[in-house]
Amino acid sequence: MSETVLLVYEDREYLVETGEEFGTDLGVLSVPEGIEPGESLETHLGTEFHVRALRGPDLFHHLERTGAPMIPRDIGLVIGETGVSQGDRILDAGTGTGVLAATMARAGASVLTYERDPEFAAVARENMSLAGVSKSVTVRTGNLLEELDSIEERFDVLTLDTGDAPAIVEHAPELLVDGGFVAVYSPFIESTRAVVEAARAVSLSDVRTRETIQREMDFDDRGSRPSTAPVGHTGYLTVGRNE
Amino acid sequence: MSETVLLVYEDREYLVETGEEFGTDLGVLSVPEGIEPGESLETHLGTEFHVRALRGPDLFHHLERTGAPMIPRDIGLVIGETGVSQGDRILDAGTGTGVLAATMARAGASVLTYERDPEFAAVARENMSLAGVSKSVTVRTGNLLEELDSIEERFDVLTLDTGDAPAIVEHAPELLVDGGFVAVYSPFIESTRAVVEAARAVSLSDVRTRETIQREMDFDDRGSRPSTAPVGHTGYLTVGRNE
Amino acid sequence: MSETVLLVYEDREYLVETGEEFGTDLGVLSVPEGIEPGESLETHLGTEFHVRALRGPDLFHHLERTGAPMIPRDIGLVIGETGVSQGDRILDAGTGTGVLAATMARAGASVLTYERDPEFAAVARENMSLAGVSKSVTVRTGNLLEELDSIEERFDVLTLDTGDAPAIVEHAPELLVDGGFVAVYSPFIESTRAVVEAARAVSLSDVRTRETIQREMDFDDRGSRPSTAPVGHTGYLTVGRNE
Amino acid sequence: MSETVLLVYEDREYLVETGEEFGTDLGVLSVPEGIEPGESLETHLGTEFHVRALRGPDLFHHLERTGAPMIPRDIGLVIGETGVSQGDRILDAGTGTGVLAATMARAGASVLTYERDPEFAAVARENMSLAGVSKSVTVRTGNLLEELDSIEERFDVLTLDTGDAPAIVEHAPELLVDGGFVAVYSPFIESTRAVVEAARAVSLSDVRTRETIQREMDFDDRGSRPSTAPVGHTGYLTVGRNE
Repeated sequence: MSETVLLVYEDREYLVETGEEFGTDLGVLSVPEGIEPGESLETHLGTEFHVRALRGPDLFHHLERTGAPMIPRDIGLVIGETGVSQGDRILDAGTGTGVLAATMARAGASVLTYERDPEFAAVARENMSLAGVSKSVTVRTGNLLEELDSIEERFDVLTLDTGDAPAIVEHAPELLVDGGFVAVYSPFIESTRAVVEAARAVSLSDVRTRETIQREMDFDDRGSRPSTAPVGHTGYLTVGRNE
Repeated sequence: MSETVLLVYEDREYLVETGEEFGTDLGVLSVPEGIEPGESLETHLGTEFHVRALRGPDLFHHLERTGAPMIPRDIGLVIGETGVSQGDRILDAGTGTGVLAATMARAGASVLTYERDPEFAAVARENMSLAGVSKSVTVRTGNLLEELDSIEERFDVLTLDTGDAPAIVEHAPELLVDGGFVAVYSPFIESTRAVVEAARAVSLSDVRTRETIQREMDFDDRGSRPSTAPVGHTGYLTVGRNE
Repeated sequence: MSETVLLVYEDREYLVETGEEFGTDLGVLSVPEGIEPGESLETHLGTEFHVRALRGPDLFHHLERTGAPMIPRDIGLVIGETGVSQGDRILDAGTGTGVLAATMARAGASVLTYERDPEFAAVARENMSLAGVSKSVTVRTGNLLEELDSIEERFDVLTLDTGDAPAIVEHAPELLVDGGFVAVYSPFIESTRAVVEAARAVSLSDVRTRETIQREMDFDDRGSRPSTAPVGHTGYLTVGRNE
Repeated sequence: MSETVLLVYEDREYLVETGEEFGTDLGVLSVPEGIEPGESLETHLGTEFHVRALRGPDLFHHLERTGAPMIPRDIGLVIGETGVSQGDRILDAGTGTGVLAATMARAGASVLTYERDPEFAAVARENMSLAGVSKSVTVRTGNLLEELDSIEERFDVLTLDTGDAPAIVEHAPELLVDGGFVAVYSPFIESTRAVVEAARAVSLSDVRTRETIQREMDFDDRGSRPSTAPVGHTGYLTVGRNE
């Protein structure tokens, strides 16, 4: 379905669009249209790369970054708590690298996402192409807050990773269908509080903020225990529902 | 797309298939084929219910339970860490209530899931119908471990929530495509360790186990703080990749 | 050393001063001066109580409460991070029930503690007597912030569990010896931040705030895992040093 | 009371016994008997060092290490949960660097501690001298488990940081006074489970194991949040009571 594939040889991984030709230190790879995951491909110097389908967590490593992208765990939490699925219409602000938008699109949603920085927006568009979701994700250059008047559609989910999230949340009831969710990702407690207050002010229901702490477990010959090197704080996730 | 809708009136919510008629304490509701989210429907006694599209987190509350279903957070973590998306073929064991299988199907995957208990399997099939994903999810009654010889397909993701997960993980390389993921959810550290050892024995890569701790935040007039009533332990999630 | 003992019979525990007589539902107990832990004592109806020495964690259960007392874990953290020990002079504000003051006195410190509420202060004085530390703890009725001018002594540790902690922390350098510690316990993030800013403004060193999360572990026949009922948030502990 | 002091000049800190002479890169310091915290002392080259009293957390940095010493937080948890205080008699096994033993002695306890490795025991004795607690701590070279028959005293607290803790815990009822506590620190879940099973087998009461997770908080101009670099796992603390 996707026209993007991963080409893998030992530790080397390239995310490429089919039909392209590109150089590696092991020789040139010509990637034919129609090549399928499971097949192989040789460079002109004879090194064999395996063709692999792109999966969501690969986006985190292979998209061009314009900031720290959301990690797979936090993307999963957004999807799990809001139920992003096929046919959903999603409004997103603070595109950044676009990993969240691309992952939601890969789950069958159509996404309209706003990025204020024109250069970041251009990179995000390129990333959507690499992720094979150009048709499902529209990256608009601009500030969603200023564009609200021009939006007449209703969305199933509103996802925000932007400093002006509180002001946008105030409009959630007009932007969301009945039963739709808003999910806001914010690193600081002050901005998180502002989001919660905005959500309460417009009477969203089930407004909850959660901090997620993960501990990686170590299993070795001596025994089992939490790692001494846990995953740090990424952000608070606030979810509310329009009902 | 779905032929299942939620009918909502104040605190009452019913998950129903269109074309059905059913009784409530506020009167009988006849749900016509073709009714759409956003419309309304009156009982024969005149109470107006709103029609709402089903979303993933609703499954947790509305499917018939045959045990404690996986919570939206953990479903999200499985989806985020393995990248479940459209077109994926997923092999699942330990169907239970079926919330995980249904949510993955809603994200566009086709799921083959095994449940050992025939009564649980029957309930799960009914739940897939309610979730509107009967066409995408096949619930087989049986023990996946004993059926492995009969499975010739390769899957993108293998999800396990069953006591014999370690023995199944030993077969992950033959069950998964190149780059495919296995995700195992296990409540106890001993069973989790057995899963990790099995994954290492068959050379899955990036084998990691994480425990997730969430704290709900309280925001009130006095200030902001973690709740004094945090979310408890659900399970360890182990993820590995076939490469 | 202490003239207070615990009298224990099955689930009944009484914290009493020697030389007293008091009634229980199992008969009257006359507690002679000089009775020692390890001995026994009968009620006039013949039930035998064991005499046990008071230990720190008993204070949490046996002192009369004028609010939620600090839990043994948090008292331990204050003691561990500041090194409260024999011969220390400690200035404390927000006495409350007095469990922290009493525990520090039991570790050999002399404590000057301020409680604004006269009734709470009276209870705290009674509690110090019950804890056997009346000679080491002086409970003053009043607001430490207003009494600072009258304090000429220097202290080894300053412990604060009061709303005006930030204003008091500003005076820490004049109140503490070289190398002395301040430890502030505060439930909300906003008040905690104010404490940190005050500590930085007067150049305390090693200013750190920590949130403590504890998970109780369950061990049963099925396996080992974190409890599904963890201990909730109590407060943030901020520690700084005068150097 | 202590005859040990810290000599501090900017980032340099030396823990020394009074009456000694020793060289620094800033010249020789002769430390007279009777010098007091708060005074100053010049090297023969004229650099002025401040004299500071030793505090508990300094032990972690200044004692000679024979392994990773217990951190102040965990020492505090042991003291808080067991109520270590003046007059306590404590039996300890797995002396190591001796930070726990020294800190408990500084709170007024007398400590009998066993260290199997003769060289480690010799270092620990030197450390007790540096910590100013030689009179309160007896470091025995040997394996407590093998010495149990020779111990007739009863202790208020039994603290264990050693691999054979489960076998020692089986003797806790004969080693502890009525109401006495055992506290075991163990890094792995398997050894922790063995400790809990031993404690249950001899009917200790209130047997609880806790894992402690701490997050350091960051406060800067952008806002307040948990640090992205949290403190990792140190160990499980199991506490039980003899009653």
